Amino acid sequence: MGVVGAGQLARMMYPAAIALDLELVVMGSTPDDPAASIAAHALTAAPTPSVDELEHLAAICDVITVEHELVEPADLAALADRVEIRPTPATLATVTDKVAMRTAMAAAGLPGPRWTVVEPTTNIVTFADAAVFDTTAGAVIKAPRGGYDGRGVILAADHDAVVRAAEDITARCGRALIEERLELEAEIAVIVVRGVDGEIRTYPPVLTVQAEGQCREVRYPSGLDPALERDAVEIARAAASAVAAIGVLAVEMFVVDGSLSVNELAARPHNSGHLTIEAFSTSQFANHLRAVAGLPLGSTAAITERAVMVNLIGAADDAYDPRVALPAVLADDRELAVHLYHKQVRRDRKVGHVTLCSSSESMESLRRRTWAAVMGLGGQVVPESPR
Amino acid sequence: MGVVGAGQLARMMYPAAIALDLELVVMGSTPDDPAASIAAHALTAAPTPSVDELEHLAAICDVITVEHELVEPADLAALADRVEIRPTPATLATVTDKVAMRTAMAAAGLPGPRWTVVEPTTNIVTFADAAVFDTTAGAVIKAPRGGYDGRGVILAADHDAVVRAAEDITARCGRALIEERLELEAEIAVIVVRGVDGEIRTYPPVLTVQAEGQCREVRYPSGLDPALERDAVEIARAAASAVAAIGVLAVEMFVVDGSLSVNELAARPHNSGHLTIEAFSTSQFANHLRAVAGLPLGSTAAITERAVMVNLIGAADDAYDPRVALPAVLADDRELAVHLYHKQVRRDRKVGHVTLCSSSESMESLRRRTWAAVMGLGGQVVPESPR
Repeated sequence: MGVVGAGQLARMMYPAAIALDLELVVMGSTPDDPAASIAAHALTAAPTPSVDELEHLAAICDVITVEHELVEPADLAALADRVEIRPTPATLATVTDKVAMRTAMAAAGLPGPRWTVVEPTTNIVTFADAAVFDTTAGAVIKAPRGGYDGRGVILAADHDAVVRAAEDITARCGRALIEERLELEAEIAVIVVRGVDGEIRTYPPVLTVQAEGQCREVRYPSGLDPALERDAVEIARAAASAVAAIGVLAVEMFVVDGSLSVNELAARPHNSGHLTIEAFSTSQFANHLRAVAGLPLGSTAAITERAVMVNLIGAADDAYDPRVALPAVLADDRELAVHLYHKQVRRDRKVGHVTLCSSSESMESLRRRTWAAVMGLGGQVVPESPR
Repeated sequence: MGVVGAGQLARMMYPAAIALDLELVVMGSTPDDPAASIAAHALTAAPTPSVDELEHLAAICDVITVEHELVEPADLAALADRVEIRPTPATLATVTDKVAMRTAMAAAGLPGPRWTVVEPTTNIVTFADAAVFDTTAGAVIKAPRGGYDGRGVILAADHDAVVRAAEDITARCGRALIEERLELEAEIAVIVVRGVDGEIRTYPPVLTVQAEGQCREVRYPSGLDPALERDAVEIARAAASAVAAIGVLAVEMFVVDGSLSVNELAARPHNSGHLTIEAFSTSQFANHLRAVAGLPLGSTAAITERAVMVNLIGAADDAYDPRVALPAVLADDRELAVHLYHKQVRRDRKVGHVTLCSSSESMESLRRRTWAAVMGLGGQVVPESPR
């Protein structure tokens, strides 16, 4: 199995591949990438691999999957006569293009913000005045492709800012997606996995805590109303069918005024699912590989009552190594599940995560312990961090 | 960290190394060994590595550990001025020599069978007549070094057979260990882990089911009397201190007439601890690496009420690949944790294992499901297997 990308997601797929004796070849951009540094078979390519580089990978694999959004779905489609591509290039084209995603979600009748598209021929000033929703209170302007962790997304506070942001993104990206700005009560995610035979399994919803466009903390259970959780799972299942996903599809949703609104999709294992490694019968990584390999999916049942995951995000650019603080942190709390990604620390860069599970301890206590570990490892603290 | 050996134990250390960003170099005897086939850094050496080969490993590592008993402790000792060896060569010399082990256990006052040693100068016929225990009802004759999975062990049923076996092993190995034959009520094991600072953590005892000298099944909890379990844990702790273990020490014990008797020690992760991957807060592999790396040990608390592990042992020599039956087996039971070792199937060879955990289901039901999976994957069935 080939994996386009060799970041932390491919790195965390590796243990699942070892267990099932699936032979993985990762393709990163340096031999020291998180997964390239640990894999027996690693190819090096451009960050956005060329068709030639993808063909090298295809030549030695039966099936290819992806762990990031940088690869061009059309380039993968060029290999589809020689190798299985899972998820398919068509799924990737839909999920990695925010306009195509919004179109697909709308066609499937799934809830989302009001949205519209601006193109170079649009007179943006006129457009904004005539927009399908009121932009005077601000809006969210998104680059259709390439954004993640808040990149390529501009929150514009008033009408003029919307016009400027739309002009900026249209000039750079050819198109801009404009979405109404929603008053969020909470953010949740559902990890859904779909097999080659169309079988779908979902993990329960998790609460995600974001700050400055990045996921900081994930909690299971979400703490939301059970009826809303059931809705979230149904939306995630429907989204996976709508885009004909193979493998993991992460469906990020907003809770707005007691209802759900689809925010983003990712057709790969996702930060909101990292706690599935310790807290669920089968991890998102194992289930992604099982789906991509054409194997039956594993149980998505929880094996603990509560779990918290906190990202270890670089607080500064110095080449500080979180392994230096590891002994003291592990000595303080013997139950921590620490995952380090073998990445040089840079400000705002995810270099690891810490998970804690319990069936007896309160969520607040788990949160305090998990955040204490992340602080001990030199990670960023945000206003949401408990003391 | 260097690992002498690249079998399934090194393979199962690898995910724990990935999580903590410990860089592992494995040294097997072929590039397709279970751990060599998945590791980014793998050296190839003789099955019993030479001092030169060990020096190559030492040159690129800060610390070296071992995953099998084939390496000569004296050869490792030759490297001890350049690299940490954990467990130490002294510990390995004690634990891998059954006479040294019996001597150490006796010195620590730990229970075991009556035993004695036969050397080439011993007149075996006279010796056997004058033995410290009655060999007319049979005895167990063991090669001091190199035996595992029942190899190098002869069960002699009567006095004459004892003499023949002792002559045979003395001629081949220089010495023979003769132990009284015990009437076993049960076999158990305790996995204990000891840090560089002498800190000790133990996993609860597990019941081990053996057939033809090989471990077939492991059950947690052991089902033994709690007082006996407490004794077993105390014996394991004392054994770890007695041999000054660093990392995992597996202490196999017999239950005889309601009491415990130490059977074997292994100074490495052990088959009886494979279920710690799914059933405990920290796996034996993670804790072995933590100890060897000088990190604080992780919690050895169970995260489930019950767990069963069954070994997948080749039933025949054909080059049948268990991956062929994997889809059907995984489809039948979505909760199975299947571990395949990337080994060609041979009769009596361990090529994988399957674990199931539950906090609600009965042990018998878990056993049936786990054995059904192993049978589905083409593994050996023994009289103990439930139908």
